[in-house]
Amino acid sequence: MQSHHPAPLARLPFTRLSFCALASALLASSALAADPPPKSGLAAILDAAPAADWRQPAPENTVYMDLPAGRVVIELAPFFAPNHVSNIRKLVREGYFDGLAILRAQENYVVQWGDPEEKNPRPLKTAQKNLKGEFTVAVKKDFPFTRLPEADGYAPRTGFVQGFPAGHDPKTGQAWMTHCPGIVGVGRDNSSDSGDGSALYAVIGHAPRHLDRNITLVGRVIDGMPLLSTVKRGKPPMGFFEDPAQFVPISRMRMASDVPEGERVALELLKTDSPSFKLALEALRNRKNDWFKVQAGYVEVCNVPVMVRPRK
Amino acid sequence: MQSHHPAPLARLPFTRLSFCALASALLASSALAADPPPKSGLAAILDAAPAADWRQPAPENTVYMDLPAGRVVIELAPFFAPNHVSNIRKLVREGYFDGLAILRAQENYVVQWGDPEEKNPRPLKTAQKNLKGEFTVAVKKDFPFTRLPEADGYAPRTGFVQGFPAGHDPKTGQAWMTHCPGIVGVGRDNSSDSGDGSALYAVIGHAPRHLDRNITLVGRVIDGMPLLSTVKRGKPPMGFFEDPAQFVPISRMRMASDVPEGERVALELLKTDSPSFKLALEALRNRKNDWFKVQAGYVEVCNVPVMVRPRK
Repeated sequence: MQSHHPAPLARLPFTRLSFCALASALLASSALAADPPPKSGLAAILDAAPAADWRQPAPENTVYMDLPAGRVVIELAPFFAPNHVSNIRKLVREGYFDGLAILRAQENYVVQWGDPEEKNPRPLKTAQKNLKGEFTVAVKKDFPFTRLPEADGYAPRTGFVQGFPAGHDPKTGQAWMTHCPGIVGVGRDNSSDSGDGSALYAVIGHAPRHLDRNITLVGRVIDGMPLLSTVKRGKPPMGFFEDPAQFVPISRMRMASDVPEGERVALELLKTDSPSFKLALEALRNRKNDWFKVQAGYVEVCNVPVMVRPRK
Repeated sequence: MQSHHPAPLARLPFTRLSFCALASALLASSALAADPPPKSGLAAILDAAPAADWRQPAPENTVYMDLPAGRVVIELAPFFAPNHVSNIRKLVREGYFDGLAILRAQENYVVQWGDPEEKNPRPLKTAQKNLKGEFTVAVKKDFPFTRLPEADGYAPRTGFVQGFPAGHDPKTGQAWMTHCPGIVGVGRDNSSDSGDGSALYAVIGHAPRHLDRNITLVGRVIDGMPLLSTVKRGKPPMGFFEDPAQFVPISRMRMASDVPEGERVALELLKTDSPSFKLALEALRNRKNDWFKVQAGYVEVCNVPVMVRPRK
């Protein structure tokens, strides 16, 4: 996902900026941060967002996945999958993932991690095996939904719940997370109740929204996405690694709450129910700067980046 | 993009298939190819598609970009950008790109290539500098549009034209390519007429549809996408490489028509105006197999993969 750390373009070498008639600065989403930034631009909005519009992810909902190349930070979403999130906390705390691996990378789809050992798989400890699927949640009318006015093809309504992209069907009273880039889900077998969080995946391509309401989604990568998206792809069609040398080892996974405070990744996210987020959506919907000739007048739920920055 | 070479799941090691309750086979788009494949599945449809429903990309519209790790194959779309395509053919033939580099990789957005030399940029030869933008094309009512019945947020109508995803506005009579994964575009400066094809990019993330009608799109990667999508990302926010050691050199680019026939990449694509493509869309819209519990009843234009396979 795109992390819109509000960095002015001036941070790029000037020569790089002047370099040619190519899109460079201009193609980027973050080119909205011109120099000086246009007041309507996303980066300017993020820059101007007051402290009250930012939140720190709860350490109890934050998972660190340490790979040889660095750390992936995942924010869990107990609102949507309380039982799976609880199970994943247990798995993480009991060291289930430590030493396991990324074992699949499918182009424009997912990376997946878990236990590559087929004959003697690692046993679960206190975590439950095979949980009831949490594909949707029943919500009341006053549930914390920042609704997008935009129509969406895959859901009657879309918007954001506590930072996460979501769909909502007022007829059924159900809500669910939408499969956007960086979303983390729980692998399962044909049975709806055959997942438990011991096999997880993250979306690394165009949103596979056809999976919505078919699988339990548990959170989203909020930092370190390139560590997953650049994993060398496995063999088509599914991208499972046939050669163990392709496995990307997971050094360890930890709950941020189990990491000494000084060693945690200090991030903050724009609250999706804040006035600044509303402004940010409008800036994404209609990108007003010299580069854009036609404004979309529309923003799709999965085309809204995670708005995260180092904690200030 | 997902290349749906119709490979039955049986090609995966059995142990890998039986491995656990995780999505494995089941998560994949290509899990539609069950074993035996359900007749409604995409892979089965591709398997059954008669020869007449496949086409070979014209060598005159096919570009090979050779990187150290392998070959990227791009199909050009003269329907949408005749002048830029013509210019790119010249640039390629005159060796403009040979020895240049991928110089930008922005997470969930684009990789971009061109001339990293800022002070003494490589001159164009007979190719034109700064072409008039070809953001949309005027079409007649009988233009070759395979329309999707689905509503789309970014365009009045979407569908496919000669293999490429497209938007269409019957009120203005304009059509354009949509920014889907793998689509190749022409970097430009603020002026609409400041691009010429000497700086190109490919979409490596979720479709940035807000760029539609703002830039000249010239084609799509039809093979070798992982060579681009796994390029190590540059520094946020824009992903330009600050260290020349990050540049991914382009060994050479060639038009397939200039490569001896026996050395060409033998691919074929499902015709987007064929009966099999219509069946494929329906299989994507409603994925009928034991894994899917809820069918989307909808397929978004950028969630339709390039349907390509080795030539038979």
